[in-house]
Amino acid sequence: MTNGTRTEPDSAYGPGSSDVGDIYRRFLADLFGVMAYGELSAFERMSSDARFSPTLHDRTVLGRLAVSEYGHFERVTEHLVKLGLDPETAMRPFQPSVDAFHDRTRPADWFESLMKFYVTDAISDDFYQLVAARLDPATAELVLALKDAEPAGEVLEARLQQALADDPRLASRLALWGRRLVGEALTQAQRVVLERAVLGGLLQGADQGPYEDGLKALFAELTRNHSRRMSRLGLTA
Amino acid sequence: MTNGTRTEPDSAYGPGSSDVGDIYRRFLADLFGVMAYGELSAFERMSSDARFSPTLHDRTVLGRLAVSEYGHFERVTEHLVKLGLDPETAMRPFQPSVDAFHDRTRPADWFESLMKFYVTDAISDDFYQLVAARLDPATAELVLALKDAEPAGEVLEARLQQALADDPRLASRLALWGRRLVGEALTQAQRVVLERAVLGGLLQGADQGPYEDGLKALFAELTRNHSRRMSRLGLTA
Repeated sequence: MTNGTRTEPDSAYGPGSSDVGDIYRRFLADLFGVMAYGELSAFERMSSDARFSPTLHDRTVLGRLAVSEYGHFERVTEHLVKLGLDPETAMRPFQPSVDAFHDRTRPADWFESLMKFYVTDAISDDFYQLVAARLDPATAELVLALKDAEPAGEVLEARLQQALADDPRLASRLALWGRRLVGEALTQAQRVVLERAVLGGLLQGADQGPYEDGLKALFAELTRNHSRRMSRLGLTA
Repeated sequence: MTNGTRTEPDSAYGPGSSDVGDIYRRFLADLFGVMAYGELSAFERMSSDARFSPTLHDRTVLGRLAVSEYGHFERVTEHLVKLGLDPETAMRPFQPSVDAFHDRTRPADWFESLMKFYVTDAISDDFYQLVAARLDPATAELVLALKDAEPAGEVLEARLQQALADDPRLASRLALWGRRLVGEALTQAQRVVLERAVLGGLLQGADQGPYEDGLKALFAELTRNHSRRMSRLGLTA
């Protein structure tokens, strides 16, 4: 995997020629950079929102989910370091869009927080899975392991179902909120892809036709999966 | 350690006679209840405040400290479960005073957050150590293990020293803030002891003379240690 120029850290990773290697390496820096910053932010937001849980039990459950997000963050940054990349440098370009997403989707109460984590966690999981199919096997394995290690979706879905059963009036508000969340998530994802051409370019894959078509297909898939989840909660997507 | 009445969970723990056992057991429920709720709250507050850190590096360092608080919380609740006690029931009596402490000491900025965690973490550590001396060996070991597993103090002290070196004008503000923090912490601790006589009573120990004297000595020791730490930071306590 190395090309002999050990003194230059920028080419310490890359499958084959130095040019392809550098592009792939920049791609991995971006992919793991956005994942790392996303997990760190999710950890911070989720643990703060946990405080407003209606019961001590809910607080401890959400706390544990937040802690597992931090665990993911650590695994992703360890991988960046293993690639000879600086995690902070890799994360920095994604701070504005991830922060903007959170600033534009401040939950009005605990149920909206719960919904936010359910929706965003599921979309990131989907995104990782779709992206993993286009990565080298070792990287794909790491990305999928993060997905599999994550039982958050089931816990959150069950808690939302219970909340909706306890108070059916929540349904219309949470349906609206779900649409807003997915809209903002995809808007910020699009912004990231536009700003970081290398990420968008390599997401496309060889068999996906033009660059824009590949992205459109990816976003359509994310939206479809989101709609399916909303239906499972009995909400109109 | 059991007294034969296995059907009655309230007497499943206790060193010797059923009466002493019940009191000691109520004491342990209170001790681990206040520890657990304190750790859970520290986790939530610390991880939320981490978001306002000046650098990504600080955010990740504080995030890791917050995660380790959650780890302590889990170990304490596991111990409660092992004693046949319900963690939520054990924590609930301490919610008002711990919440009041945090509500009365909202940091105005990140440096005040840092100071808050440094001060409160150190006071809890001291408290655990002083209390451990009066516990049965197995319980003392758990309590001290939590203290030893905690490298937070050093990390926070080093970061505060750096912040004070970078901006010496911080010193007078942080000195004032430190006094306020220790004052509120001891006020809430006193409230806890008054409301939960069993906790105060058993903290006293056999050789401490009257109940009030034992408490006074404990609080004096906590205040002395706090002053020593402030001096190390070059702050007047």
